[in-house]
Amino acid sequence: MGAIYETKRSFMKKFFYPLSIAVFGVADSQRNLAKNIVSNCRDMGFKGDIFPVGRSRGSVNGIKIITETDELPAGIELAVILVPAPYVAETLDICGRKGISHTIISTAGFREYSGKENRFEKDVLAVVKHHGIRLIGPNCIGVICTNSGLCTPFNPLRAKRFKKGRISLVTQSGGVTVQAAHLYSEEHVGFSKVISIGNKLDLNEIDYLEYLMDDEDTEQIHVHLESIEDGRKLIDLARKIDKPIVFFKSNVSVTSAKIAKSHTAALVNDDRIVTGAFRQAGIVRVKNIREMTVCAKALHLPPLSGDRLAVISLSGGFSVILGDACEEYGFKCPSLPRDLLDEIESFRRGGVVRMANPMDFGDVHSIEGLTFAVEHCLKLDYIDGMVLALFYDPEIAKLLGQGSDDTQQMLDFLNATMSAYNKPIALSFLSERQYIEEYKRMSPFPVFNDPVESIQGLRTNRNYWKKI
Amino acid sequence: MGAIYETKRSFMKKFFYPLSIAVFGVADSQRNLAKNIVSNCRDMGFKGDIFPVGRSRGSVNGIKIITETDELPAGIELAVILVPAPYVAETLDICGRKGISHTIISTAGFREYSGKENRFEKDVLAVVKHHGIRLIGPNCIGVICTNSGLCTPFNPLRAKRFKKGRISLVTQSGGVTVQAAHLYSEEHVGFSKVISIGNKLDLNEIDYLEYLMDDEDTEQIHVHLESIEDGRKLIDLARKIDKPIVFFKSNVSVTSAKIAKSHTAALVNDDRIVTGAFRQAGIVRVKNIREMTVCAKALHLPPLSGDRLAVISLSGGFSVILGDACEEYGFKCPSLPRDLLDEIESFRRGGVVRMANPMDFGDVHSIEGLTFAVEHCLKLDYIDGMVLALFYDPEIAKLLGQGSDDTQQMLDFLNATMSAYNKPIALSFLSERQYIEEYKRMSPFPVFNDPVESIQGLRTNRNYWKKI
Repeated sequence: MGAIYETKRSFMKKFFYPLSIAVFGVADSQRNLAKNIVSNCRDMGFKGDIFPVGRSRGSVNGIKIITETDELPAGIELAVILVPAPYVAETLDICGRKGISHTIISTAGFREYSGKENRFEKDVLAVVKHHGIRLIGPNCIGVICTNSGLCTPFNPLRAKRFKKGRISLVTQSGGVTVQAAHLYSEEHVGFSKVISIGNKLDLNEIDYLEYLMDDEDTEQIHVHLESIEDGRKLIDLARKIDKPIVFFKSNVSVTSAKIAKSHTAALVNDDRIVTGAFRQAGIVRVKNIREMTVCAKALHLPPLSGDRLAVISLSGGFSVILGDACEEYGFKCPSLPRDLLDEIESFRRGGVVRMANPMDFGDVHSIEGLTFAVEHCLKLDYIDGMVLALFYDPEIAKLLGQGSDDTQQMLDFLNATMSAYNKPIALSFLSERQYIEEYKRMSPFPVFNDPVESIQGLRTNRNYWKKI
Repeated sequence: MGAIYETKRSFMKKFFYPLSIAVFGVADSQRNLAKNIVSNCRDMGFKGDIFPVGRSRGSVNGIKIITETDELPAGIELAVILVPAPYVAETLDICGRKGISHTIISTAGFREYSGKENRFEKDVLAVVKHHGIRLIGPNCIGVICTNSGLCTPFNPLRAKRFKKGRISLVTQSGGVTVQAAHLYSEEHVGFSKVISIGNKLDLNEIDYLEYLMDDEDTEQIHVHLESIEDGRKLIDLARKIDKPIVFFKSNVSVTSAKIAKSHTAALVNDDRIVTGAFRQAGIVRVKNIREMTVCAKALHLPPLSGDRLAVISLSGGFSVILGDACEEYGFKCPSLPRDLLDEIESFRRGGVVRMANPMDFGDVHSIEGLTFAVEHCLKLDYIDGMVLALFYDPEIAKLLGQGSDDTQQMLDFLNATMSAYNKPIALSFLSERQYIEEYKRMSPFPVFNDPVESIQGLRTNRNYWKKI
């Protein structure tokens, strides 16, 4: 890790943690979009100075709009530019003269529109070369960084709702950026940074991955791209990164190729080559955004080192469904020791369900019974991980004298047991959506949306660690 | 439609629309389960008389528990029995002597426990034969009928939340019954009847399908089974039913076979034979419960008679994702007439997005533009259906002076346009979960959870009508 590398790292950091920003293109009018960049940053708690710049006097979020660029102070660390395409180059020139070397160009209307390098783009390239400016975009919504509060999308977001987490996402599309930010937050996996990279006129996926590979706030790197600039370089880099990389490559069909080109100037890559190269580099490939959140959960759990699972469900029907899913995804459910099953059966109430693996816990309404079973199954040396589908109903819990404290204790117990044995427990709840959401919020580890998804998650975890 | 058939139909009807019910096994104690049957029925608005029967005096839901069966009035139309297995036969005898010919046996502990016909089961069969009683179960939770308010599960449900709809579901497992009832309600497809059929000691899927095929409250029949009793009979019947049948067959693996046997005494069927036979009979096969709700939505839309779709998304990134999904599921996105695209482009604001199919509507913030595009695309004779992924954000809508009235008008317009051209529109929203839920509630037609799911839905619709 030489000096150049360190210099580049600290250079890149200012795109995410700038001490001050200028926003170009702001107006105090209802339909102005750039003013939302100011309010999004404020909403998400960005603490640095914000300097809105525009052509007409006024103020946004209580901050005066600067109309004479001479009034801009020196030392601004990042500029976000949302002025019409013909004015982008001259705005960059102002940035250069003010010593601003980091810019996000949100403006669209470059090569994605004309299908080739156009005049505006040529002018932009000339100016950035002259001043030594680096840029994200154009045709993007920039950066959302939950750690610094920087939030540069120009659509009004309820940015306070974004959940801080340890996943960073690089995405080519602004729409996907926003949808993913919502989804990762709703799924309680959260995110550290989301970067909308647009046309990649200057910085591209390689630059972002190089930064994120050592970013201490980033535990997993997720990527959504419509085109890969330099496949060989990407694969070489991915091999060096010891964080999970989850990749959603869209633009894989003839139908989408023409759209992608006019959307972010993306060219289609040969999908078979992509698949093979990804496998070699240990990249987890997914097919949609929802699957990315399942991977986020799965790869946060301890590693699954084999195929042998103990499965406990609080419903016979779901035990059967889980047994099918285990087999479909290449898992085995080994028989459990008879004396252990006998001990577990002794917690039963009705005595009508026989224990096996998958285990129907339907008539064991006992937290003690469940914790006993979980711990004693997970410690078996021929069990690599567990699947738990708990039928939870607050009315029944009340009936049994249990409250939310008991649920919290149970979740904490599962978390501690996972850590103690360093084996994953894939947990889901059979309940109404609102209660499932409540447990997701309460749980110190990821909760899946349904039993089948939990096994899909374990498959990802296993394949990642076994490098399948 | 002979007299015997009509007699059987009106006989079966009493399992769903009884004028009065007796519930056996009730006690006024905290842990008693049968008393929940009484409160569930009351919660869901069951208007008939309810007679709780138990061994100790007391009352539940303000109704006195009957301890002397002589006190039971004549003419009760349905008995729900949740007494321990050894007492089921004598309870059935009481029913028979009181002239009750319809029973639901919720009690477990029959052949699913011992793995073969046990003594209790033999006794039950003898009594029902003697009295001519028909029964649902044993080892089930019976019936939830949103039309009559009958709700016989013995777990406390918040039955008021169940959404009335036109789908009836036959399921082997109690856990799946409850989870499906929640999920169908949450997805706003609703249900007419859910039947938990348990061990099928007497009535089986054939009986239920025969009833539902002519039930006027049932538009689609959904089935979840762990075992099929008589495949040939089922297939012959399915061919006669002119309502969509959506089938989730679990217990398809070696792993689950042993569990299914001890759960509902279900034996595994050869899955390849099942697949082939289903296809012949036009049965839509799915792999999990969530997929059933996607089918429910898709098959409620007008028929998709071909593979040619017009796709509109309010995000370029999702246009690309949708293009990929169209191709994956065998759809084509034909080029649209240049003059139509020009007209649509004239509604643009920023003028930076070029129109194609899939169409990126990202900068057309105009309801007029969108309705124009939808109508003019759908009426084209080489377009069979549409996919719409609307990026909706209430903050942006407010900015554009739009309110929820506009959204309602838009939804009503889409519904009317679909009916006018008898072609489906698969709609999804790109937004936060809470707003998506709001639009699901508002919409007079089904809304999918995300863009890819909407295309999966159209595939089901097309395959059903093309009999693929």
